[in-house]
Amino acid sequence: MQAEVKSLNEECGIFGVWGTPDAAKLTYIGLFALQHRGQEGAGITVNEDGQLRTKRGFGLLTDVFDSPNAVADMTGTAAIGHVRYSTAGSNLLENIQPLPFNFSDTQFALAHNGNLTNAISIRKNLEDRGAIYHSSSDSENLMHLIRLSRANNLDDQMKEALNTIKGGFAYLVITKDRLYAALDPNGFRPLVVGQLPNGAYVVCSETCALDAVGATFKFDVQPGQLIKIDDSGITIDQYTTDTQLSICSMEFIYFARPDSDIYGVNVHSARKRMGEMLAQEQPAPDADMVIGVPNSSLSAAMGYAEASGLPYEMGLVKNQYSARTFIEPTQELREQGVNMKLSAVKGVVRGKNVVLVDDSIVRGTTSRRIVKLLRDAGAASVHLRIASPPLRYPCFYGIDIQHVRELIAANKTIEEMREMFGCDSLGFLSVQSLIDAVDLQTDAPNKGLCVAYFDGKYPTPLYDYEAEYDRDQAQLQKMR
Amino acid sequence: MQAEVKSLNEECGIFGVWGTPDAAKLTYIGLFALQHRGQEGAGITVNEDGQLRTKRGFGLLTDVFDSPNAVADMTGTAAIGHVRYSTAGSNLLENIQPLPFNFSDTQFALAHNGNLTNAISIRKNLEDRGAIYHSSSDSENLMHLIRLSRANNLDDQMKEALNTIKGGFAYLVITKDRLYAALDPNGFRPLVVGQLPNGAYVVCSETCALDAVGATFKFDVQPGQLIKIDDSGITIDQYTTDTQLSICSMEFIYFARPDSDIYGVNVHSARKRMGEMLAQEQPAPDADMVIGVPNSSLSAAMGYAEASGLPYEMGLVKNQYSARTFIEPTQELREQGVNMKLSAVKGVVRGKNVVLVDDSIVRGTTSRRIVKLLRDAGAASVHLRIASPPLRYPCFYGIDIQHVRELIAANKTIEEMREMFGCDSLGFLSVQSLIDAVDLQTDAPNKGLCVAYFDGKYPTPLYDYEAEYDRDQAQLQKMR
Amino acid sequence: MQAEVKSLNEECGIFGVWGTPDAAKLTYIGLFALQHRGQEGAGITVNEDGQLRTKRGFGLLTDVFDSPNAVADMTGTAAIGHVRYSTAGSNLLENIQPLPFNFSDTQFALAHNGNLTNAISIRKNLEDRGAIYHSSSDSENLMHLIRLSRANNLDDQMKEALNTIKGGFAYLVITKDRLYAALDPNGFRPLVVGQLPNGAYVVCSETCALDAVGATFKFDVQPGQLIKIDDSGITIDQYTTDTQLSICSMEFIYFARPDSDIYGVNVHSARKRMGEMLAQEQPAPDADMVIGVPNSSLSAAMGYAEASGLPYEMGLVKNQYSARTFIEPTQELREQGVNMKLSAVKGVVRGKNVVLVDDSIVRGTTSRRIVKLLRDAGAASVHLRIASPPLRYPCFYGIDIQHVRELIAANKTIEEMREMFGCDSLGFLSVQSLIDAVDLQTDAPNKGLCVAYFDGKYPTPLYDYEAEYDRDQAQLQKMR
Amino acid sequence: MQAEVKSLNEECGIFGVWGTPDAAKLTYIGLFALQHRGQEGAGITVNEDGQLRTKRGFGLLTDVFDSPNAVADMTGTAAIGHVRYSTAGSNLLENIQPLPFNFSDTQFALAHNGNLTNAISIRKNLEDRGAIYHSSSDSENLMHLIRLSRANNLDDQMKEALNTIKGGFAYLVITKDRLYAALDPNGFRPLVVGQLPNGAYVVCSETCALDAVGATFKFDVQPGQLIKIDDSGITIDQYTTDTQLSICSMEFIYFARPDSDIYGVNVHSARKRMGEMLAQEQPAPDADMVIGVPNSSLSAAMGYAEASGLPYEMGLVKNQYSARTFIEPTQELREQGVNMKLSAVKGVVRGKNVVLVDDSIVRGTTSRRIVKLLRDAGAASVHLRIASPPLRYPCFYGIDIQHVRELIAANKTIEEMREMFGCDSLGFLSVQSLIDAVDLQTDAPNKGLCVAYFDGKYPTPLYDYEAEYDRDQAQLQKMR
Repeated sequence: MQAEVKSLNEECGIFGVWGTPDAAKLTYIGLFALQHRGQEGAGITVNEDGQLRTKRGFGLLTDVFDSPNAVADMTGTAAIGHVRYSTAGSNLLENIQPLPFNFSDTQFALAHNGNLTNAISIRKNLEDRGAIYHSSSDSENLMHLIRLSRANNLDDQMKEALNTIKGGFAYLVITKDRLYAALDPNGFRPLVVGQLPNGAYVVCSETCALDAVGATFKFDVQPGQLIKIDDSGITIDQYTTDTQLSICSMEFIYFARPDSDIYGVNVHSARKRMGEMLAQEQPAPDADMVIGVPNSSLSAAMGYAEASGLPYEMGLVKNQYSARTFIEPTQELREQGVNMKLSAVKGVVRGKNVVLVDDSIVRGTTSRRIVKLLRDAGAASVHLRIASPPLRYPCFYGIDIQHVRELIAANKTIEEMREMFGCDSLGFLSVQSLIDAVDLQTDAPNKGLCVAYFDGKYPTPLYDYEAEYDRDQAQLQKMR
Repeated sequence: MQAEVKSLNEECGIFGVWGTPDAAKLTYIGLFALQHRGQEGAGITVNEDGQLRTKRGFGLLTDVFDSPNAVADMTGTAAIGHVRYSTAGSNLLENIQPLPFNFSDTQFALAHNGNLTNAISIRKNLEDRGAIYHSSSDSENLMHLIRLSRANNLDDQMKEALNTIKGGFAYLVITKDRLYAALDPNGFRPLVVGQLPNGAYVVCSETCALDAVGATFKFDVQPGQLIKIDDSGITIDQYTTDTQLSICSMEFIYFARPDSDIYGVNVHSARKRMGEMLAQEQPAPDADMVIGVPNSSLSAAMGYAEASGLPYEMGLVKNQYSARTFIEPTQELREQGVNMKLSAVKGVVRGKNVVLVDDSIVRGTTSRRIVKLLRDAGAASVHLRIASPPLRYPCFYGIDIQHVRELIAANKTIEEMREMFGCDSLGFLSVQSLIDAVDLQTDAPNKGLCVAYFDGKYPTPLYDYEAEYDRDQAQLQKMR
Repeated sequence: MQAEVKSLNEECGIFGVWGTPDAAKLTYIGLFALQHRGQEGAGITVNEDGQLRTKRGFGLLTDVFDSPNAVADMTGTAAIGHVRYSTAGSNLLENIQPLPFNFSDTQFALAHNGNLTNAISIRKNLEDRGAIYHSSSDSENLMHLIRLSRANNLDDQMKEALNTIKGGFAYLVITKDRLYAALDPNGFRPLVVGQLPNGAYVVCSETCALDAVGATFKFDVQPGQLIKIDDSGITIDQYTTDTQLSICSMEFIYFARPDSDIYGVNVHSARKRMGEMLAQEQPAPDADMVIGVPNSSLSAAMGYAEASGLPYEMGLVKNQYSARTFIEPTQELREQGVNMKLSAVKGVVRGKNVVLVDDSIVRGTTSRRIVKLLRDAGAASVHLRIASPPLRYPCFYGIDIQHVRELIAANKTIEEMREMFGCDSLGFLSVQSLIDAVDLQTDAPNKGLCVAYFDGKYPTPLYDYEAEYDRDQAQLQKMR
Repeated sequence: MQAEVKSLNEECGIFGVWGTPDAAKLTYIGLFALQHRGQEGAGITVNEDGQLRTKRGFGLLTDVFDSPNAVADMTGTAAIGHVRYSTAGSNLLENIQPLPFNFSDTQFALAHNGNLTNAISIRKNLEDRGAIYHSSSDSENLMHLIRLSRANNLDDQMKEALNTIKGGFAYLVITKDRLYAALDPNGFRPLVVGQLPNGAYVVCSETCALDAVGATFKFDVQPGQLIKIDDSGITIDQYTTDTQLSICSMEFIYFARPDSDIYGVNVHSARKRMGEMLAQEQPAPDADMVIGVPNSSLSAAMGYAEASGLPYEMGLVKNQYSARTFIEPTQELREQGVNMKLSAVKGVVRGKNVVLVDDSIVRGTTSRRIVKLLRDAGAASVHLRIASPPLRYPCFYGIDIQHVRELIAANKTIEEMREMFGCDSLGFLSVQSLIDAVDLQTDAPNKGLCVAYFDGKYPTPLYDYEAEYDRDQAQLQKMR
């Protein structure tokens, strides 16, 4: 629908494999390891003897593939898959990926992680020329550009199309006889290649999915690369050489799984170093213990504890079934102390001065709730430490941080936030320490990290979002 | 069916509340906090103006109550609920609890955690006298005994019935005008009473459910007690005084949630102490780090690390969506290294000497798999430490450890197990240290703990299981 | 629930087979031919090697067995099945039949068509002695009586139980090694025995189900008979000889399928004769054509046309998909002429004087609607003829005519009804002509027909309904 | 998928309404009256304040709209809907209509009854120019042609597109501010306009849907017309004047509902006249009665009976629940006499000489089965009379008669067929009598009827099907 064409930024996970039996099953298992990257939709396209077949739906993988046969029936030797996080408005089945395309004489399917910054312009332009889009997703643009290309072969059509789109993207495109993988010129999103024991190539968002399927890591896909995998092997090409690494720092801070490595850096270890540096920059000398918000902040909490010499404790327990429930406590019940997702361990925190480590703060509502939870459980004091810098600017490359007015740190001072959260002290990690904690081995700006949501310095033009960004900043000025 | 009448041992979670709006919703929330106690069935009975209504089904709470209205539609001011773990054979809807009973002039529903040891005898006896059972569950016996009692009032009928059944049981019984809670004479299963801010009483398996619904802990139900809650308040009575505390030690070791307190002892803290004592009894002097099997062994691992002075690390990551998936890797894929539930963090364990702490060992297959996972990830050595004694005998009071021949420790020596698991060393906690780590403040034998699965000394006669136990022991002799 | 125990009269269809492969599939096919007897629930119990397995649920057969495997998976060589019509209140899964009963050492399942008149007394009596009922259905009483019988063998226990229950019943009872069929002493409900080409015996409500499964009709079960079918063949016995045929005349008028034969009389032919006699008793000399209300009144309309010499026409068309739809027109839409189930054929009735034949009138609302439909389509006049006598009294033997105050003919004169329906003339068949049209070859009163809903003369005592009947009659007196 | 692009002929029902509350509900009710035109898919697009929303799915209307709210939630004042019959291969959700199309600045949805004869050429041509199709349906071509048109306004774009497509089509197109209806230049498919009491216009396949929603018939849409309905009323235009009526005769013979009128002719009455003329052309002087195959042949049977003076009888009963069942008898059971859909009424046909009237014969398998059914029920002789001419040629305009080799009459003589069916005599209606029985008031060839499946004279070129037709005819030559 019209209103939905605009806000299609998303974070997602992708997985592809070429040349092995059980391709769909391996894709399911790989996506299962990437489920944290998207829980609102999932799909798999399988290639069986050159015919593509797609199954996709809303919810978790286990909602879409809800019986043992759901995957087993998808026989074939190549496949791509997608798990999707989406903003509220765009809940159309047509937007769930892989997006399948059937032509009189051929078929395609594509899966995309990222956000295009010139999607609206391209779509309007092509629609004026008669194009009909299936979805309201920015991802679909690539297919139209490929088909409209006048280049002589599919490789060149891909390159022409990839050079037209802008923004953050890791793309998988499967056809009857090949699998393409492509990364944007800044490498905003992670993408890795591995190999199964039988020699088949796998390409996916994170190394944890390689581990899950028993594949060996081969290399990180580089900015501007176009990889082609077919029955004759793998071909690595550049569709552009105008590249500069600027990988999303939120992948290291929050998004990726701790057991994944990105450009050679283990995510858990990077987070632990963030915690260590945080302990140095923002000490809490009188505290009795360090606890982390489960599960994403545990690594940073361990690092803080180790660097500060304070004991690391289990002061919060997360309900392991909370991935989904249709029933939520009402506001009234919540105020009576009802809590379904997180519990404070009274026996641990009662009477203690607690350092609470969290990975990041977006709106601040969760922080306030957790601080209250600990106080209600008897904590004597709560010192909140955030293992990343304050989030102040939107992301246009694939993470759902769209509206500055929703970012608490864009609107309030540290002291205002501390008061709002009800904690005894509050401290953030500095941008430089974040960069040093990740410590990518590159001489690109910010050591190859995108930190634009912290400092507002975007590594590319914003294209269709330029006006929106200006409007948001103006609104923010007024609010201050 | 016939074949199913026999094997009805189970571990479960129960929750009841009397005298508050939103009773079914609170019960849902309470059960959600007890979901770890049973994932194969769930149900709620609500009392609305004296009329009982039950909804129950297979699977997780979110499977049974699969829309926001599923609970909201169950209006009423009192309710009981149940989450169920069951053995494979007894998958009948009729066995899912609460068990509802409708009479011409009244209604009952009951929920049970535990296992009766004379269920088969009672059922045969009553069926010979014309009784018709709804379910193949041992839990149903109580209802028949209540109805057959010639006592003058329901209180006395309850007492008569409770004195007839044997074994482990925490029972909730709801009627049009009251809620009963009863505990077996040994208190094998935990049961606590709390109070909501509005004064309504809550009774449930663990204190974590009290926290979830915002209730304050009042007391642990004692062995042999019969509690009655109705509109006039709470009444505490003993249906027998021939009692002796013998609470299941597996609740502390593995089953209960770390944030729960049982008879005043916090479960996380008890596990941490088990880990500390394990470090003393079974040190691993040359190790570089301690890691726990997520999530149940993390507390013990922290304790081991703290006592040994070794760093505590995140060497294993559990897929947080693995609570359920219909698709499992085939044996073939598994041998190729496919793993959907657990990942080793290569960046952490590569080249390191690792102490791996696990809470307990049943069949040993999981231990072997995890050791291999760590070795494949590059661990230099793996020292497996178990924070409980070797499991060698069956449980007849409500935990599904039925067949001795399935217990690896009943069949093999420590060295044989070490070899089978492929670890460099293996050590268990002693029974005495377990007892000391929990440290219940009572002078009952084993400080009030049941440790029969470790030492074979059952605190009660085994009734219907006597013959089965002898058969199993004889078979075991032959296997050795 | 309490409130539901009382109003459990119902009309249903039953089917059983013993000693053939595909027993469940044949039962499905037989029930499919009996679906008109009940659309609100269905179930099948299959006997596989002495083990009984039951599947049952709400709705049509196709709702309960909603995949090709749903029946195919029920392998076994004997089965019973049930389709159920129920009053609004008793929508509990537990009431759907066959009712399964599992004992420690045996199993039973039973299916029942009819209504017991002393069900409430029996249940209260047995509950006082400790019995627990599964359902709120009157059908369950038989099982309790069988189990409580002190007779030496199952045959005698059956007989004792059958002599205790009163009212209308055709029962099927399956066990691990036999199938029983029993009919009440008045034979209120139809029940026939047939034989498959392979020699296996079938017992079911109507001969149309014999035809559907390819069985040959053998005999009508007689009042007071107890039939036993097992691997050694069929045994016919009488549990009582105090019998007198009084089969429900509504089976001939409306309920049974036109292709069925009951006690040797074809239902379509009987209806046609009712139409012929109606034409003689209630002629419509100036009419242009005869039309019937589809589908149940078409036979009578053909008879009326043939006897009167008027052409038989298709003036009303029934939507063949109307068996079920969740969406109904609102009252507002209905008044605007919206009609989803029945259409008048304007091209046929416009400007014509129409004889409209209907089989019976209960509340009169449908008659009013159809007369209006024909007038709106342009009919010049509508002469309504009812091929049965006015319904004035309740049925207690299995048809849902409970409350006299709902019967329009109990409250109004013929002229008042004519005015209410808006037709030009109105005429009913006499009771004697009904009896003559069916013309059963027996010297029992009313030639073996029960016509109590027409004349108030019940062939048995009413037991638990005595008081209700008196109350209804008194209320009726007041309304007049 | 590739293979499916080709065989997309279909028969369907369409319904649209503009300018009334409850538009979706009326569309549901209208489609419910058209359900006989397609049972394999259904959908509704509603226009609420200029926003289009579509719900569609597989199966009957009651499968797609499977709860009371499913339609009620679709609020809006205009809507179109579709019920779909499809050939086996094309079971893709994307093919279920209405087909929705979302553009950056507007929305469309379209519903189509018929089959385009140049769909494959158009699609290949447009795909070569970059077009991407959503579905494998021929219906989608119209949307692409509209969008590619360079005409100045939507009216002219519609006309340009309609002049490009060939074959049989009745199209509904809804946008944010209008509803278009268009009919092909030969008027192969029926399409009528009516008006609700509140003045809103309705356009649909048959007048029975007008009756169902309480609308008054206004006019039949004429060949080559483009109707536009918007808030200012109705506009009737011709997109071409090169037209000649050639409406599908199978609509009169079999497809349309008996209560519908097409170009002023009532379908039931036309069928009755076919039966009358059949009695004259193909008498059966020694017969005792006439019976029709329910439900489609009853009108013709009444006509045959009336013209021949033989009694009209109910010799076959159709199971009214057979619209759908997942469970079918196996071939083995079928041979044992199992029959789930049709029953012979033994009491009626036993020993009688029967004229059996059927509307048409396609493959002949049904005829053989029904003749056998009557013989097994004891009929002395069976004289089969077909109220239409022998089907010998494929249809390319929207009825699923694709392969000549499947048409029994294309392959066998009358005598060969009689022998195959096992009947005593066999007679068909002549083409001329068919034309005279329908008797449309027009001087177009065949009085405005398409009878090409009988005589092979197609009223238009066959375009993409030319080659297929030649191949089929050649194959047929060989078979003879």
